[in-house]
Amino acid sequence: MLVTFGEIMLRLATPGFQRLRQATRLEVTFGGGEANVAASVANYGLPVEYVTRLPANDLGRACMAFLRSYGVGTRHIATGGNRIGIYFLETGAAQRGSQVIYDRAGSALAEIQTGMIDWPTVFEGAQWFHWTGITPAISEGAAAVCLEAVQAARAAGLTVSCDLNYRAKLWKWGRSASEVMPELVALSHVAVGNEEDAEKVFGIKPEGVDVKAGKVAAKAYESVARQIQERFPSLNTVAITLRGSLSASHNTWSGMMRHEGRVYTAPTYDIVPIVDRVGGGDSFVGGLIYGLSTFPDPQRALEFAVAASCLKHSVPGDFNLVTVAEVEKLMGGDASGRVSR
Amino acid sequence: MLVTFGEIMLRLATPGFQRLRQATRLEVTFGGGEANVAASVANYGLPVEYVTRLPANDLGRACMAFLRSYGVGTRHIATGGNRIGIYFLETGAAQRGSQVIYDRAGSALAEIQTGMIDWPTVFEGAQWFHWTGITPAISEGAAAVCLEAVQAARAAGLTVSCDLNYRAKLWKWGRSASEVMPELVALSHVAVGNEEDAEKVFGIKPEGVDVKAGKVAAKAYESVARQIQERFPSLNTVAITLRGSLSASHNTWSGMMRHEGRVYTAPTYDIVPIVDRVGGGDSFVGGLIYGLSTFPDPQRALEFAVAASCLKHSVPGDFNLVTVAEVEKLMGGDASGRVSR
Amino acid sequence: MLVTFGEIMLRLATPGFQRLRQATRLEVTFGGGEANVAASVANYGLPVEYVTRLPANDLGRACMAFLRSYGVGTRHIATGGNRIGIYFLETGAAQRGSQVIYDRAGSALAEIQTGMIDWPTVFEGAQWFHWTGITPAISEGAAAVCLEAVQAARAAGLTVSCDLNYRAKLWKWGRSASEVMPELVALSHVAVGNEEDAEKVFGIKPEGVDVKAGKVAAKAYESVARQIQERFPSLNTVAITLRGSLSASHNTWSGMMRHEGRVYTAPTYDIVPIVDRVGGGDSFVGGLIYGLSTFPDPQRALEFAVAASCLKHSVPGDFNLVTVAEVEKLMGGDASGRVSR
Amino acid sequence: MLVTFGEIMLRLATPGFQRLRQATRLEVTFGGGEANVAASVANYGLPVEYVTRLPANDLGRACMAFLRSYGVGTRHIATGGNRIGIYFLETGAAQRGSQVIYDRAGSALAEIQTGMIDWPTVFEGAQWFHWTGITPAISEGAAAVCLEAVQAARAAGLTVSCDLNYRAKLWKWGRSASEVMPELVALSHVAVGNEEDAEKVFGIKPEGVDVKAGKVAAKAYESVARQIQERFPSLNTVAITLRGSLSASHNTWSGMMRHEGRVYTAPTYDIVPIVDRVGGGDSFVGGLIYGLSTFPDPQRALEFAVAASCLKHSVPGDFNLVTVAEVEKLMGGDASGRVSR
Amino acid sequence: MLVTFGEIMLRLATPGFQRLRQATRLEVTFGGGEANVAASVANYGLPVEYVTRLPANDLGRACMAFLRSYGVGTRHIATGGNRIGIYFLETGAAQRGSQVIYDRAGSALAEIQTGMIDWPTVFEGAQWFHWTGITPAISEGAAAVCLEAVQAARAAGLTVSCDLNYRAKLWKWGRSASEVMPELVALSHVAVGNEEDAEKVFGIKPEGVDVKAGKVAAKAYESVARQIQERFPSLNTVAITLRGSLSASHNTWSGMMRHEGRVYTAPTYDIVPIVDRVGGGDSFVGGLIYGLSTFPDPQRALEFAVAASCLKHSVPGDFNLVTVAEVEKLMGGDASGRVSR
Amino acid sequence: MLVTFGEIMLRLATPGFQRLRQATRLEVTFGGGEANVAASVANYGLPVEYVTRLPANDLGRACMAFLRSYGVGTRHIATGGNRIGIYFLETGAAQRGSQVIYDRAGSALAEIQTGMIDWPTVFEGAQWFHWTGITPAISEGAAAVCLEAVQAARAAGLTVSCDLNYRAKLWKWGRSASEVMPELVALSHVAVGNEEDAEKVFGIKPEGVDVKAGKVAAKAYESVARQIQERFPSLNTVAITLRGSLSASHNTWSGMMRHEGRVYTAPTYDIVPIVDRVGGGDSFVGGLIYGLSTFPDPQRALEFAVAASCLKHSVPGDFNLVTVAEVEKLMGGDASGRVSR
Repeated sequence: MLVTFGEIMLRLATPGFQRLRQATRLEVTFGGGEANVAASVANYGLPVEYVTRLPANDLGRACMAFLRSYGVGTRHIATGGNRIGIYFLETGAAQRGSQVIYDRAGSALAEIQTGMIDWPTVFEGAQWFHWTGITPAISEGAAAVCLEAVQAARAAGLTVSCDLNYRAKLWKWGRSASEVMPELVALSHVAVGNEEDAEKVFGIKPEGVDVKAGKVAAKAYESVARQIQERFPSLNTVAITLRGSLSASHNTWSGMMRHEGRVYTAPTYDIVPIVDRVGGGDSFVGGLIYGLSTFPDPQRALEFAVAASCLKHSVPGDFNLVTVAEVEKLMGGDASGRVSR
Repeated sequence: MLVTFGEIMLRLATPGFQRLRQATRLEVTFGGGEANVAASVANYGLPVEYVTRLPANDLGRACMAFLRSYGVGTRHIATGGNRIGIYFLETGAAQRGSQVIYDRAGSALAEIQTGMIDWPTVFEGAQWFHWTGITPAISEGAAAVCLEAVQAARAAGLTVSCDLNYRAKLWKWGRSASEVMPELVALSHVAVGNEEDAEKVFGIKPEGVDVKAGKVAAKAYESVARQIQERFPSLNTVAITLRGSLSASHNTWSGMMRHEGRVYTAPTYDIVPIVDRVGGGDSFVGGLIYGLSTFPDPQRALEFAVAASCLKHSVPGDFNLVTVAEVEKLMGGDASGRVSR
Repeated sequence: MLVTFGEIMLRLATPGFQRLRQATRLEVTFGGGEANVAASVANYGLPVEYVTRLPANDLGRACMAFLRSYGVGTRHIATGGNRIGIYFLETGAAQRGSQVIYDRAGSALAEIQTGMIDWPTVFEGAQWFHWTGITPAISEGAAAVCLEAVQAARAAGLTVSCDLNYRAKLWKWGRSASEVMPELVALSHVAVGNEEDAEKVFGIKPEGVDVKAGKVAAKAYESVARQIQERFPSLNTVAITLRGSLSASHNTWSGMMRHEGRVYTAPTYDIVPIVDRVGGGDSFVGGLIYGLSTFPDPQRALEFAVAASCLKHSVPGDFNLVTVAEVEKLMGGDASGRVSR
Repeated sequence: MLVTFGEIMLRLATPGFQRLRQATRLEVTFGGGEANVAASVANYGLPVEYVTRLPANDLGRACMAFLRSYGVGTRHIATGGNRIGIYFLETGAAQRGSQVIYDRAGSALAEIQTGMIDWPTVFEGAQWFHWTGITPAISEGAAAVCLEAVQAARAAGLTVSCDLNYRAKLWKWGRSASEVMPELVALSHVAVGNEEDAEKVFGIKPEGVDVKAGKVAAKAYESVARQIQERFPSLNTVAITLRGSLSASHNTWSGMMRHEGRVYTAPTYDIVPIVDRVGGGDSFVGGLIYGLSTFPDPQRALEFAVAASCLKHSVPGDFNLVTVAEVEKLMGGDASGRVSR
Repeated sequence: MLVTFGEIMLRLATPGFQRLRQATRLEVTFGGGEANVAASVANYGLPVEYVTRLPANDLGRACMAFLRSYGVGTRHIATGGNRIGIYFLETGAAQRGSQVIYDRAGSALAEIQTGMIDWPTVFEGAQWFHWTGITPAISEGAAAVCLEAVQAARAAGLTVSCDLNYRAKLWKWGRSASEVMPELVALSHVAVGNEEDAEKVFGIKPEGVDVKAGKVAAKAYESVARQIQERFPSLNTVAITLRGSLSASHNTWSGMMRHEGRVYTAPTYDIVPIVDRVGGGDSFVGGLIYGLSTFPDPQRALEFAVAASCLKHSVPGDFNLVTVAEVEKLMGGDASGRVSR
Repeated sequence: MLVTFGEIMLRLATPGFQRLRQATRLEVTFGGGEANVAASVANYGLPVEYVTRLPANDLGRACMAFLRSYGVGTRHIATGGNRIGIYFLETGAAQRGSQVIYDRAGSALAEIQTGMIDWPTVFEGAQWFHWTGITPAISEGAAAVCLEAVQAARAAGLTVSCDLNYRAKLWKWGRSASEVMPELVALSHVAVGNEEDAEKVFGIKPEGVDVKAGKVAAKAYESVARQIQERFPSLNTVAITLRGSLSASHNTWSGMMRHEGRVYTAPTYDIVPIVDRVGGGDSFVGGLIYGLSTFPDPQRALEFAVAASCLKHSVPGDFNLVTVAEVEKLMGGDASGRVSR
C-alpha cells in the first residue's frame, strides 16, 4: 500500500482555451501533487491511501468523493479548518502558456498541526510513503507534519520518496526551502525533480542546458543526479523529468534516473497537442513508484514512468487516468494513436 | 450619482438544481449586497460608482469587467490584497433550501485599511451613499473604512442609506453587531432591513409573526420601524422587506416603509417559481433608492422597490437586470407574464 | 397531405431563464407559425409539405434539415434571397414575461415574389392548405404570394384554414391588416384566432373579458365566433384559443369552436410550470387540423386540439413534439404526469 | 452495515425538459432501485456494501467509481458479462409525464448465475440486507441469486427488507411475479410498496382510491398492509408510500407503516416543482432503513423516511443526496426553503 | 439513386478529450459504416435511401430524424426489435488513441430476418447498392439479408460496391469472415478496404509495410489490389485507403485504386490536428461512389474520394458534412485553410 | 486617447469545430475590425472610445456591455436603427478553413447618416483616430460618416490610421473601393494592410509571392509599402501583415513596416494550433498603435505588434485579451508556453 500526504485543491478551469476574464463557467475537478500521484498508482491497481486535511463542508466532501471515485482511500483524511485551497487554471495554446492563480492561503491543510494525524495507524500495512516539496512550503504546521510523517514512515520501515517540486511563490512562512528541505530529503530513499528543482532547492546546476530554449539534454542531468545522491546518501534513486517546452501545445518529454549507481535513460516523446500538462510530473512519479514496486528491472520502471506521464498530457484534469495496459502499449512502441475498437 | 461600498465576491453556482457534491461545472458571476444595489440603480439609468478593494489578478479584473458591463463605475476601486472573496451557491427547490458556502476570509476587502480610499474624491458629484451591515462585520479594517465613508458622505452632504443585513456567521473580528452598528446607523438617513435584522442587531422584535411558518404581517412591522426611528432620529425612512417563505420555489414578497412619520404599504406578490432569490433584498434597496430619488411620491417609491425586487426573483445571478419600464408594467398590475414581441 | 406556407426563422433562445444581456450561449432551433403547424401534423403521422423561401447558405440548409428531421417535407421550398429571418427569445418566469426580438426584415421570404412557387404542382395530392395572418403582414410580395396560394388551393379543391395571428409590429409595407386580411379570410373554410385577433383584425370584440387579469370566459367568445362567421360565410369553422395568463409560468388553457352552426367547448387545463409557450397557438391549430381530418366528431377534434396544445407548453422549442397516443392519454383525463416506463 | 443487491444501470437523461428526440447531449449518472437505497443510507453515514455484476469495461468501472464517490462499498461487485444495463430518461413537466426507455436485456446482472457471489463473505459484519422485486423479474439467474442472497442473509441473522417494486415490462423469463415473489417475501422482515405493488403482485387492493385522480388516502392502505402481513407472518413491518400525482411537476407525498401490529402515519408534503422523481420510492426505503436502525421510535423512523424522500424530489439524479440534518430540519416543520448561509 | 444497408448506432461520445470514466455528459449523434456512406453521398446532392432495422421507440425515431435531416431517405427502414445498437467513443489525442466500446448485441438489425425488407421495391429507380463487411459479421440473419440484398441488387442491374471493413470483435455467430465474405464479394463490382482488411479477410498481404510505424506505401498495395481482383473477377475496381498513423492527432492520408486494369494514385494529405477520424474510411467510399458516378475520369474520382475523406477528419461526428465545392477546392490544391467570408 | 469607428457585430460561433449545420448552440460574443483594435489598446491600459451606431434593444445594450467590460468607452455610441449586424462563424481545422456568413445588411451602422455623430466632441482629448476599409464599404452613409470623421480628426490634430481591409462581398452601394478609398487614405498617417489589400484596393502587387501556397516573403512587400507611400505622401507609416496559411490550424505570422523611409522587419512565428484567427490582423493594428504611441523605437513597435497578434491566435473571440507583460515576454523570445504559476 502506498500512502501520500499533501494538499489537494479545488481546481477550477476555463473551458475551450478561454482566458479567465472570459469565463462564464468553470470546470470542477480536484488536484494536487501528492493526490495526483495517489490517483496514478490507484489507477494501476495498487492500494493507496491519501492523507490530507479538508474542511467539514460540501466542498471537502466533494473532494473526498472525487478521490474515492478513482480508488484512492480517504480513511485517514483529517476534517477541520475553514476552507479548501483553490486553484484557477486557464489552459494555454501555441505561444500562450497556461496560467494558474493559486488561492490556497488559510486552507485546512495550511492550518494542520502535528498530532492531528495518527501516522503509526496510517502506516499499518503500508510499504511506501510519498511526499513533495510543496507541503513543507505551505506553512510551518504543514512542514512539521510532513517531517512527522517522514519520520514515522522511516520508523515503520517504509520506502520514502519525494518530489522536490520547488514553488517560488510558496515558502512564505519564515524559513526557506534550502533550510527546510535537506532534513526531509535526508530521510528519503527516492527523489524526483525537474530541470529547475535541484538548482532552486540545493543550488545544483546542470551544464549546457537552456530551459527556455526548449532543449533538454539527458546527459547534462547525470551530474545533477549524482551530486544530489552524494549530498543525500539515503537516496538510492534520483530521477529527473526532462521537458522540452517548444510551445504550450507542443513539448518533448522524457526522464532519466540514477539508481544504485547506474544511470538509466528513456525514449523522448514528442507530445502534440497537449491537452492538459498539469500533473505531468506527478504522473511520472506515480509511474515510477508503480514501476519500482512492480518490475524487477529499473530500466523498465523508468520507461513505464516516462510513457505513463507522456499519456497524461492527453487527459484533462490533474489525474492520470490510464491503465497499465495502455502504458505498456506505448512502451512497446505503439504511439500510432489508432482507434481501439 | 450613487456610491456604494462593500465586498463583491466571485459567485460560483451549480447549474440545474445540482447539489455542490454533484457539480462538474460552476456558473461564474459576481455579487455582493452593495454591488447588487449599484447594479440595480445603474440599470435604471442613474450614474453609479462602486467602491471596493480587489486583488491585482485576473479574477479581480474579471470582476471589474463584470461591473462595468452593467454600467457600474469602477474608477475608485482600490487594487491590492491577496484574493477575491468567493461564495458557492447551490440553488434549492421545493422543500430544499438554497445553500451558500462563504469563502471570504482574507479577501482584499477584509484587509482594507483606512486611508486606502480617498472618500472626498469619490464623493465629488455624488448625492447618495449606500452601505450595509455586511461590511463592518467582515473585519476591523472594513468596519473602520465603512465608518470613514459614512462620515465623509455626511460631510459631503450626501443622503446615506444602509441595509442592516445581519449575518451571524460573520462578526468574528472582536466586536459584535450591536456594538458597532449603532454608530453607523446613527449617521444614516435611510435604513432597510428584513424581518430578522432588527431583532438580531438591535433586539427590536415584531409581534405576532412566525417567520418559519412562512407568514408575514406588514402590520406587525410598523412598530419595528417606529422603534428603530425612535432610537435613531437621523433615520427619516425605515423600510422592511416582507418575505413569506412557503418553500424554496414559492415565496410571497412585499415591503412596508415608515417615512417622515407616515406608514406606507405595498401589494404582496406571489412568486412561483423562484429562479434565483439571492440578491432579492438588495434589489429592493436598489428600487427604493431609485424611487426615492426619482418619484415625488413615497408610496410610488415603495411600490417601485417591491415590484422591482419581485422581478429580481426571476433573473439568474445576484444582479437585478430589469428596466424601469418592466418594473412600471408590473406596478401597473400586469403580472400576466405575456410574451413581449 | 397538408401544405402550409409562411416564414420560418432561426430561433436563438437564452438558456436557463437568462436575460438576453446575460447570454454567452444561445440555443439554436427554428420556428414560425406555419412551420409549427406543419411539424405538429407531421408528428401525428400525416404527410406534410412546408413551403417557404430560404437563402442558399448553411443557415438555410440547416433550417431545411431541421424540418426534414421532424418529417416535414421540404421539396417545394424556394431558394434565394439574402438572409433567413431570426428571432431572439428570452424565456420569462413568474411575473417576468418572455421577450422576443424579431430580426426578420429583408429575409428571403420577405422578398418573395409571385411566380416563385409553382402552386399547382405543390398542391398535387394535397387535401388541406394552411396560412396565417403573419405572412401577408411581412411584405407586399409575401401578401401577394399568400393570396396566390389561397386562390390556387381553392382552385385545387383543398380545404383552406387560417390563423388570424395579428402582429402589430409587422404590417409596415403600406396596407393594414384590415385592408388585406378580408380577401384572404373570405377564401378560407376554417379560421382560428386568440382572444385579441378578432378585435385587432376585424374590430369584433368579446364581452366581459379582461385579458390582462388572466381570466377568460368561453361564453364570451361564442358571439365573436358567430360574428366572424356572419361576416365570412365561407368559414364553416371558427375556433378560438382561450389563454388565461396568470404569470409567465402559470396559464390556464382551453379553446372553443363554432362549427357548422354548433358551439363546442373543451376542458380548461391549468399549466404549471410552462416550459415554453411559444408555438402554443400553432400547436392548437395543428391539433385541430389533425382532429378535423381524422375524427368524425368535431367535439373530439376540439378536445384533441386543446389537449395537444396543453402538452406543447411542456416541450422546449417552437415545435410540438407529442404523439397521438400522448394527446389521447391526456384527453382521457390522465394529467397525472406519472413516469411512463 | 447494510448490504443491497440488484442492478445498477447507466442513466442517460435529457437536459432541460428536452424530449429524447431533441437531445444532442445526455446527462450521465447511474442508478437502480437497490443502489439508490445503498446511496441514501451511505449518505447518512452508515457503512454500506452494494452487490451487483458489472462488465469489465470503462462503463463498468465508471459505475463503480460513481458508487464509491457516494460512499457505497464496491468490494463485492462481480465483474463479467457483456454490457451494463442502460436507461434513457426524459423528465416531464406539467401534464407531460417523464418517460423511461429501458435497455437492460443481456446486462451483466441479467446473466448472473448462482455461485458468482460469495454471500457468506459478503454478509460478514452486516446487519441488514435489502432486495427489491426488480431483481427476480430480470432473469432466471437473477431470481436464483436473489433467493440465494435472501437465504444466506437469514442464515447469517440479518434483517431482510424488500421493496415489492412491480415492473410489468420485466418478468419475461418464464415465471410471473406472483409465482416467484412469495417465496422471497416470506423470508423478509420488512416490506415496502407503493399503491400499485400489492395489487399487482399479490392481488391485494386498497379501497376507495383512484390513483389516476391524484388522490391517496392513508386510511385505505391500512387494510392493504394488514393483509400483506397476514399472508407473510415474517413481516413485522409493512410500509406503503403514498404518492398523489397531480401533474409531472406537482405531487403530494406521504407514507404509512404497519409495524408490530400498530399503524403509523406521517405528514403529507406538497412537492412543487419536482426536479427529479426517479428514485423517490427508493429514498423512502433508504430513510426507513436508516430510521428503523437508528431511532427507537417507529413513528420517527417513518417520519424520517417520508421527509427524506420528499427532499429527494428536489435532487437531480437517482441518488438522494441529503444529510440527516437536512431531513431532520424538514421533519421539524421547516419547509420554508430559506437560504442556508 | 444510391441504396446502402447496414446498422446505424446511437453514438455517445465524451466531449473535450475526456475519458469515458470522467464523462458527465455524452454527445449524441448516430453513425455506422453504411449510413456514413449514405450521408456523404446525400450531402453531394445525389438521392440516397438507407435501409436498416430500428426499434419502434424514440431512439429509433431520433435516428431516422437524424438521417432525414442530412437528406438520407428513410422510407424503407424496417421497424421492430428491441433496441438500437450503441457505441461509446472517447476521442484520443497525441499518443492516446481513441477508444470505442460497442454495445450492439441484440440490436434490431442483429435480429433482422430474410423477408423483412422488400428489396425489389427498395431498388426501384436505384443505380447503386453499397454494403460493408460489418453487416454479415453481426448475425446470421444480418448476413442472410445482406446476401439477399446483394443478389436482388444484381438482379435489378445495380452497381454493387462493398467495403471489406473487417472487425475482429464481431463474427461471433458461427461462421468466419473468410467463410462468408467471398460469396458476397464475388457479386460486387467495387471493393474498398484499408491496409488490414485484405489480409484479415482473404489472407492477402502487402509487402514492405509496417502499419504501426505509421508508414504506408501506395506501391505496396498495388499487388494487394491485383490479387483481390484476380480472385474476384467481378471486381472491376479495387480501392485501398492509405492511413499513416503518426499519432491520434496526426495522420497521413491517401488512397490508391486499381480500376479496369490501371492503377491510380492520389496525393497524400498530412492531417493535423484530427478532430474526428471515425468514419474516415466511409467518407472515402462516399467520395468514391460520388466520383465514379459523376466524373468520367477515374483519376478524378479517386482524388475526390481522398480529398473528401481528408476533410472528414476535421468534422465532428461520423458523417462527412462537406460540399462538392469544398472537396474540389482542396483537390485544386488549396489546403491553406483560409477564412471563407 | 484612441478613438475608433466602425461596425461591431453580434458574433455567433459554433463550438468544438462543429459545422453550422450541426450546431444546436452558438457561442455569443461581439466583434468587428475597429472594435477589435479598440479592445486591444484598452487592454494595454490606454484610454479608448469606440464609436458606432447600435439599435435600442437588448442586443445593442448587450454589445455595449461587452465593450465596457473590456474597458472600451461607449459614451459616444449613437442609438437607433433596426438591427445589429450579425456574423456566423464556424471555426475550421486542418484542411477545412473557417467559414463566415455575414448578415449585416440593414444594420444600425449601415443606416448611419452624417451629422449623427458629433465628431468634435468625440475627439476632445483624443490623440489617435483609427478607421478601416470595411466601414466605407458598408453603405453610402457609412462612407460619408467615415470621411466626416477622418476630416474632423485631422482638423483636431489627431494621428489617423487605417487598415485597408478589403472585403469583396461588401462594396455594393454604388461606388467601388478604388473610387472611395483614396480620398480617405490620403488623409491618414498610418496604413496597414495584408498581402491582398494593396492589390485589391490600389492595384499594387508584390512580386514573387504565391499566397495560396502558404509562403510569404517580407522582401516582396517592401516595394508594395514603398509604392503605397509614394502614392499617398501623408502616410509616414505603412505596415503589412505577413500570414503564411499552411492550414486552418497552422499559420506562420509576421509583419513588416516602412516608417519614415526605413524598412523594419520582425521575427516570424509558427502558430500551431490556431484557436481563433478572426481578429488576427486587428490585433496587429492594436499592437502597432500601442507600440507607436508608447515606444520611441519603431522596431520595438513593430515587434510588439507582431508578438501581440501572434498571441491573439490562441484566444477565442475577436478581441485580443493579452497584457503588455505577456506580449513582452514573447518579444523577449520566450515562446515556451510554460505554465505561469
